[in-house]
Amino acid sequence: MKPASASNLYAIPGELPLDSGQNLAGAQIAYETYGELNADKSNAILICHALTGDQFVASAHPITGKPGWWERMVGPGKPIDTDRFHVICANVIGSCMGSTGPKSLAPDGEPYAMRFPVITIRDMVRGQVALLDGLGIERLHAVIGGSMGGMQALSLAANWPTRAQRVLVIASTARHSAQNIAFHEVGRQAIMADPAWCDGDYYASGSRPDNGLAVARMAAHITYLSEEGLTEKFGRRLQDRDAKSFGFDADFQVESYLRYQGSGFTQRFDANSYLYITRAMDYFDLAEEHCGKLADAFSGTTARFCLVSFDTDWLYPTSESRHVVHALNSTRAQVSFVELSASAGHDSFLLPHDQLDRVVEGFLNG
Amino acid sequence: MKPASASNLYAIPGELPLDSGQNLAGAQIAYETYGELNADKSNAILICHALTGDQFVASAHPITGKPGWWERMVGPGKPIDTDRFHVICANVIGSCMGSTGPKSLAPDGEPYAMRFPVITIRDMVRGQVALLDGLGIERLHAVIGGSMGGMQALSLAANWPTRAQRVLVIASTARHSAQNIAFHEVGRQAIMADPAWCDGDYYASGSRPDNGLAVARMAAHITYLSEEGLTEKFGRRLQDRDAKSFGFDADFQVESYLRYQGSGFTQRFDANSYLYITRAMDYFDLAEEHCGKLADAFSGTTARFCLVSFDTDWLYPTSESRHVVHALNSTRAQVSFVELSASAGHDSFLLPHDQLDRVVEGFLNG
Repeated sequence: MKPASASNLYAIPGELPLDSGQNLAGAQIAYETYGELNADKSNAILICHALTGDQFVASAHPITGKPGWWERMVGPGKPIDTDRFHVICANVIGSCMGSTGPKSLAPDGEPYAMRFPVITIRDMVRGQVALLDGLGIERLHAVIGGSMGGMQALSLAANWPTRAQRVLVIASTARHSAQNIAFHEVGRQAIMADPAWCDGDYYASGSRPDNGLAVARMAAHITYLSEEGLTEKFGRRLQDRDAKSFGFDADFQVESYLRYQGSGFTQRFDANSYLYITRAMDYFDLAEEHCGKLADAFSGTTARFCLVSFDTDWLYPTSESRHVVHALNSTRAQVSFVELSASAGHDSFLLPHDQLDRVVEGFLNG
Repeated sequence: MKPASASNLYAIPGELPLDSGQNLAGAQIAYETYGELNADKSNAILICHALTGDQFVASAHPITGKPGWWERMVGPGKPIDTDRFHVICANVIGSCMGSTGPKSLAPDGEPYAMRFPVITIRDMVRGQVALLDGLGIERLHAVIGGSMGGMQALSLAANWPTRAQRVLVIASTARHSAQNIAFHEVGRQAIMADPAWCDGDYYASGSRPDNGLAVARMAAHITYLSEEGLTEKFGRRLQDRDAKSFGFDADFQVESYLRYQGSGFTQRFDANSYLYITRAMDYFDLAEEHCGKLADAFSGTTARFCLVSFDTDWLYPTSESRHVVHALNSTRAQVSFVELSASAGHDSFLLPHDQLDRVVEGFLNG
């Protein structure tokens, strides 16, 4: 679909205070909107994107030309119905699709690169809330996010408890586990090991750490898929050949697919943003922000919650969603929870799934 | 323990025929032995090592000085009792601890590097069998292996069915899955992305693709551990600090641990060997070698089998062992199978585990 407006930029007034203690001056947020905002501004839905996502939730990506990453979910008559709702999706602070991040120019006119402050999920949400303030939206009909988007939705509910009536968290977690951190650290080390990374100062050099970024993406991509899904999709089938090559080409379809995922990713993403956003995710532990007790994070909430997990998601398994549900239960928050069956692992939230559609639609209209 | 003899080298006479159709001339096998071979040569046990293992199963590694990798299992009075058995452990073809591999000199006096032929698990076993021939050992009391060692044990049982009376396969599989291949491909791409790799011709250059190899090891290492084990061992605990640094140092213990594992590995392993051995594992599909029917692989066997899996091993999960057991059952082979409980994931086979000890000891003496 065509967005209501393209490439909106919102300049955050003053400084954005960050969890690190630093302040980010002159930050801007790039966002897209779909559907009309009603007169009393009560029909707004904020969709928060995942690690490598962007604001183009339901319109073509300006670099790849591919459809929006949740086009099947967002649009007229779709589960998130833009005939009824005003949908906002903003590129997170630290990313590279228009919001202020490491490739943006610092006040001295040079790219921040690694001078960009380390941010947190809560800082990203500070950016989202600043945008809502700018748009005059006091209370969202709902905040919705999958994966890292779900972390933002939880953080918004915990830290700005009056800003959303409904909180929908899909395939997400309230904390990054040791295994989650470990996979991200592999990706960061792959980027930093690339000589073209140059301690992050590659913007003017004409060469970028694409090799390292591709390896990082490949490693991460495996965690987005299930063993079962990989076996269904690729198994041990060979790629464009009848027999093994006894060489190091991509003999297997799964190798070819991963290489394609890795190299394609480098066309649209900035390596330093990958470092910063993975760091923010690794730092995320909503309980820790509230003296170690997750329930306390939600003590002020009046929102209704819905959590969805997928049975083959081993990145943020059902147990993580259940952990959040238990915390919400203990604060007597209104919460529904469903584990959906899907073979595709973590990525299931992005793929066609009738039950997910019904859950989303039902929750938004209930 | 002190090995019966150190740094034994066996020169394979003539040429070693390979699955690729090539022949490897002048190949040698480096091996260690422990315990005395009896007069009728009936007490020999061949232990096959894993991907990054070596022949130093029960004696100090000559580079790192660390104890043998299975010292707790192999020795006088231990489950694999060297007071009773003559234990042989050979470095696989393609590796880098003395057996012929990519860093060895080709007939032209230069290192093979990527001119080394792509090998298979069966080729590794051809090397093992050649060594047994050289040692005059017609029939092993047992062949034993964990992980890739288990693949070799299965391959030996399938292709040289009279050579072992007992076959003990721990935490292994009869085929590499799409997910297994995917993780290995990430490692290979990390190595090949390192400019110091130089298409494999780095032996004379003075610099090695250590950064790429370290990233490969880090990614693989995560697959050797369970989510549960990582949480127990590290959780989200910080490394030598009280608060997050808001930087890219190894804030978390798990990051520090992975970096240490990655860099330590480069001290003792050759990057090209990593490429070749992971390739051999990815090519492994014992059923495929036998027209797609795994049971047919074992039709000629008279050996007794024992398979052991660990409940938290997600690299080669219990279902893979069960698949082998079903194939063996259908050929009416003698087979026992046990899934052991252990929190450490795939690596559990290398760690203290009383039940594993009893299974190994019982099987060897039954």
